[in-house]
Amino acid sequence: MSDVRVTIPRDSEREERVVTTGTTAADLFQGERSVVAARVAGELKDLAYEVADGDVVEPVDITSQDGLDILRHSTAHVMAQAVQELFPEAKLGIGPPIKDGFYYDFDVETPFHPDDLKRIEKKMQEIQKRGQKFARRAVADDDAREELADEPYKLELIGLKGSAADAAEGASAEVGAGELTIYDNLDAKTGELCWKDLCRGPHLPSTRAIPAFKLMRSAAAYWRGSEKNKQLQRIYGTAWPTKDELKAHLEFLAEAEKRDHRKLGAELDLFSVPEDIGSGLAVFHPKGGIIRRVMEDYSRRRHEESGYEFVYTPHATKGKLFEKSGHLDWYADGMYPPMQLDEGVDYYLKPMNCPMHNLIFDARGRSYRELPLRLFEFGTVYRYEKSGVVHGLTRARGFTQDDAHIYCTKEQMADELDATLTFVLDLLRDYGLTDFYLELSTKDPEKFVGSDEAWEEATETLRKVAEKQGLPLVPDPGGAAFYGPKISVQTKDAIGRTWQMSTVQLDFNLPERFDLEYTAADGSKQRPVMIHRALFGSIERFFAVLLEHYAGAFPAWLAPVQATGIPIGDAHVPYLQDFAAQAKAKGLRIEVDSSSDRMQKKIRNAQKAKVPFMIIAGDEDVANGAVSFRYRDGTQKNGIPREAAIAEILDVVERRAQV
Amino acid sequence: MSDVRVTIPRDSEREERVVTTGTTAADLFQGERSVVAARVAGELKDLAYEVADGDVVEPVDITSQDGLDILRHSTAHVMAQAVQELFPEAKLGIGPPIKDGFYYDFDVETPFHPDDLKRIEKKMQEIQKRGQKFARRAVADDDAREELADEPYKLELIGLKGSAADAAEGASAEVGAGELTIYDNLDAKTGELCWKDLCRGPHLPSTRAIPAFKLMRSAAAYWRGSEKNKQLQRIYGTAWPTKDELKAHLEFLAEAEKRDHRKLGAELDLFSVPEDIGSGLAVFHPKGGIIRRVMEDYSRRRHEESGYEFVYTPHATKGKLFEKSGHLDWYADGMYPPMQLDEGVDYYLKPMNCPMHNLIFDARGRSYRELPLRLFEFGTVYRYEKSGVVHGLTRARGFTQDDAHIYCTKEQMADELDATLTFVLDLLRDYGLTDFYLELSTKDPEKFVGSDEAWEEATETLRKVAEKQGLPLVPDPGGAAFYGPKISVQTKDAIGRTWQMSTVQLDFNLPERFDLEYTAADGSKQRPVMIHRALFGSIERFFAVLLEHYAGAFPAWLAPVQATGIPIGDAHVPYLQDFAAQAKAKGLRIEVDSSSDRMQKKIRNAQKAKVPFMIIAGDEDVANGAVSFRYRDGTQKNGIPREAAIAEILDVVERRAQV
Repeated sequence: MSDVRVTIPRDSEREERVVTTGTTAADLFQGERSVVAARVAGELKDLAYEVADGDVVEPVDITSQDGLDILRHSTAHVMAQAVQELFPEAKLGIGPPIKDGFYYDFDVETPFHPDDLKRIEKKMQEIQKRGQKFARRAVADDDAREELADEPYKLELIGLKGSAADAAEGASAEVGAGELTIYDNLDAKTGELCWKDLCRGPHLPSTRAIPAFKLMRSAAAYWRGSEKNKQLQRIYGTAWPTKDELKAHLEFLAEAEKRDHRKLGAELDLFSVPEDIGSGLAVFHPKGGIIRRVMEDYSRRRHEESGYEFVYTPHATKGKLFEKSGHLDWYADGMYPPMQLDEGVDYYLKPMNCPMHNLIFDARGRSYRELPLRLFEFGTVYRYEKSGVVHGLTRARGFTQDDAHIYCTKEQMADELDATLTFVLDLLRDYGLTDFYLELSTKDPEKFVGSDEAWEEATETLRKVAEKQGLPLVPDPGGAAFYGPKISVQTKDAIGRTWQMSTVQLDFNLPERFDLEYTAADGSKQRPVMIHRALFGSIERFFAVLLEHYAGAFPAWLAPVQATGIPIGDAHVPYLQDFAAQAKAKGLRIEVDSSSDRMQKKIRNAQKAKVPFMIIAGDEDVANGAVSFRYRDGTQKNGIPREAAIAEILDVVERRAQV
Repeated sequence: MSDVRVTIPRDSEREERVVTTGTTAADLFQGERSVVAARVAGELKDLAYEVADGDVVEPVDITSQDGLDILRHSTAHVMAQAVQELFPEAKLGIGPPIKDGFYYDFDVETPFHPDDLKRIEKKMQEIQKRGQKFARRAVADDDAREELADEPYKLELIGLKGSAADAAEGASAEVGAGELTIYDNLDAKTGELCWKDLCRGPHLPSTRAIPAFKLMRSAAAYWRGSEKNKQLQRIYGTAWPTKDELKAHLEFLAEAEKRDHRKLGAELDLFSVPEDIGSGLAVFHPKGGIIRRVMEDYSRRRHEESGYEFVYTPHATKGKLFEKSGHLDWYADGMYPPMQLDEGVDYYLKPMNCPMHNLIFDARGRSYRELPLRLFEFGTVYRYEKSGVVHGLTRARGFTQDDAHIYCTKEQMADELDATLTFVLDLLRDYGLTDFYLELSTKDPEKFVGSDEAWEEATETLRKVAEKQGLPLVPDPGGAAFYGPKISVQTKDAIGRTWQMSTVQLDFNLPERFDLEYTAADGSKQRPVMIHRALFGSIERFFAVLLEHYAGAFPAWLAPVQATGIPIGDAHVPYLQDFAAQAKAKGLRIEVDSSSDRMQKKIRNAQKAKVPFMIIAGDEDVANGAVSFRYRDGTQKNGIPREAAIAEILDVVERRAQV
């Protein structure tokens, strides 16, 4: 036995150790129960990996992203073993880790029933307790084919070995570019083979190392994501380093489900996505229409005050325009197919508004005196999202951008970007979002237009402008589009989810392509700088984010019904109707529930509708010319003189306060 | 010679006359110089027609529509003769009368130059003075072919004799279903043949009977209207019963041209129709955007006050929706072609909003308590107008309807229609239109859905509602769409042109097709009545009508810039900027011209931009805290205290007064 020198890097310090041949990573990290794998020369290894002389062996903690992926991947194996123990005829698809969990696809005759999931989960607990070992074994392709002769999908994957095209479909978890490996699940005591799977690994050392998991649901999924292939059954699960984290995750999911904008949209009668129109194409019902309109109106007022000018452009155009802009070269996949008009001219739905705004800029000569020219439009665009990724209002096929394009001189650029970012953040705060960080997307050295100097100057300007906000600034190197660097505003909602909101994007490309010019003070023709800027991004998506953020309980200024009048008895209806008329004259949105329901039922209905203020009136109120408030939180305030009551609601609305 | 008995009907009386054989219509109406033809048994005849025993011979006056058509058709012949005298190689196409005039198409090598038109006009005057006779002559088809061997287009028309399909292309003026005729132009003295044309007639007796005419312009036109055929050159002309009428018509045209919304749209920087986007698809520039937005905002406020609820629907949908609504059966030609998504599903741009509003009605159960439910949308629709008929904003391929659908019970129908029509007229008046008549379109007995009783009841309701308005009511029998009767509001603009504006349309079809229901008070399911109702029709078109109506000089409430501050010297700029800030704080749209132009130039610029108020300030104004007004009509008012000045403008805006 000779000496083996290894280095173990931990945070800032590096431990040098000399061990004997045959020492494994598990030996190195013995006693460190949260270490589940090792990273050696950039590659993840099982703890069973025997260290070699000169290795730098980094511990991978179960709480790190790699650690979580390994945990979840191993849990997926356990699930697959459980499924095949219970359903021996089930054939294996693929089973990668995903965000917060994992899935595995199976070819089975009948879709899984929720009861099946319970049985599978129970079997998994059994396997977890068995403490089976995950054992790695390299195999030749032909041997693998023989061993897995009963698994047609695995055989197909062996054929695809190393094919980069398949990485996106999760197959890379099974077969990599290097040698083929199989992981055997071995009995803890006897070492007997319990189950095996074609897999790159690494894995936890044992099934017992899985601290907490749960199966979530099953759904149909096409083999390798193509509608042309067979439909398999996918089971989703989640796995966590502790039982508490699992519990917190499940609570988060329950909360998110309660806030699901699609569910709330139906419950509160705000919008729907009719089957006859098609997925990703929503209709807004009257109540949703009010919220949306208030959002738009406030945004418009603020934009007007900040010097934006409003334009309108059509939704369809000759393809020529998108040839000019270049969209047909690099964005055609995201566009709806063309419609042929006038015997041979292709027309397209617009996926972006910018080319049309450029035509407005270019409709007549422009002078430096007119700059910055800020053209704004609530422009509805259409993008061909794959049907599988369409999701309610947050990922739609038609949506309305609050889209502005700013044309300015190079000298104006810094001030304009600064003012824009401040404006954007200020306005988002008015809508109730307060937790932000910024992301700065910089040049992809492989793919950009314009000079290095222009990029450098613009990027530095963006960085300074972003830093000035005093918000966390996350770099996104290489993340910029080819036409210019970008700042994006990321915001956290009430339950901690991050949403990308506004973007402020420089564009070096379109002013060239459209040959945009203005006449400078010295009479020379100059190229303007162009800034794309969306604040909500998509009104529909922002609507959905706010709906989930507020769980439907919109602040009064946005609420479709701001107050509901609830009479204690029928006799008090006219009194409340009179009150409502006064409130309406002040611009408030108020209804009186004059139905035949009992008062308690009316209160419950108003609560369900998440109306900010209930205005109750009985004999005493009528006698005193007063009303009683019942707030959304259930508290009550009695005997408020009518004028004071209206003033209170108006004040909350005007301050855009959260109640 | 035997006696020939004829009856001559005139207005209410009928004259019986006995004449001799060989008597012509010209003889009957001798001395009546304005009679240019006769109608016998429904057929128009030349004055040279020899009356037969028993004929009822009605005089056709040159001022009647038939008389005008004959005048214009004869003038077209004179033009064609003049062209062939000047351009002997020109081949004849067709030459029918049209609204206010006529045209004739010619196959010539080079398009006509404006100078050519002058020469042709001169030659026509010569022919007019010659007093050539128009002489009708029946010919056998083969003889006609021989006579017209040099006129290939006429030969083609002989082949089409009586083909109904060709009536639309104007060929019916040349060849009818009956015998083929040629009109010879004969010298007044010698009777010698000067020119001839294949023609059904009738014609004036002589070229001298043409009182007043003028050639207007020439343009290319495809033979028989098809792009597949050869391009001919068309000359348009106009002809009138008196020189005064011709003069009035030319003045009207000049006025209309000055007001042409396409011209004003460019001059006032309101909108454009970029070639890169396509004809019929306009973009609104910032100034046009303001007008449009003010129009929409005011309309929205009034609709909200009247109980309309606002919805939003997408511009594209699965074809399924338009199968359900029936549009794909009866409106497919007016729709853009489909886009195929998701491997085989056809999506269409919507030509109408109604089917989507029906889906919103149907998104949940409806109670009688909710009715009338009035769903309103500024809904942009796309219709495939032939490129030849597209005209600026008045006939576009994409436009925004102010579209509402009212769902009510049968019992509510009469009140709802009454309120709707009153509302519609009231709102149109607010936009400055005051001269209306109504049209009632009733059942086409060949083509309708629903029961006779339902139509009768609905039509009677519409008639009563229309009569109540005290406006002229013009019947349009058989003019209703198959799905229900309709009232349309016709309005005259400042130069007397009639525009169809609002429509109020009952629909017996869609509630059935969508199986729309509400729960009545007794718990039974009932079918609602549906009313389609658009007020502007198309916002773009209404915008164009107002632009032409006001000749660009919008009343202050609609004007994109309501006031322009004009300093007498540079020293007065800050004073006016301060004034403008105060005015802006009150919601006014005001600019200060701080350019280096001289004051007179600034005034001219504001006049050209048709700004309602010019606010001028010099030393004296500054000393007195006052400003001077200069109005659009050139009048001036000096020394108005600043607050009073702002109050005056605000008052004009709030009253929506015409200044």
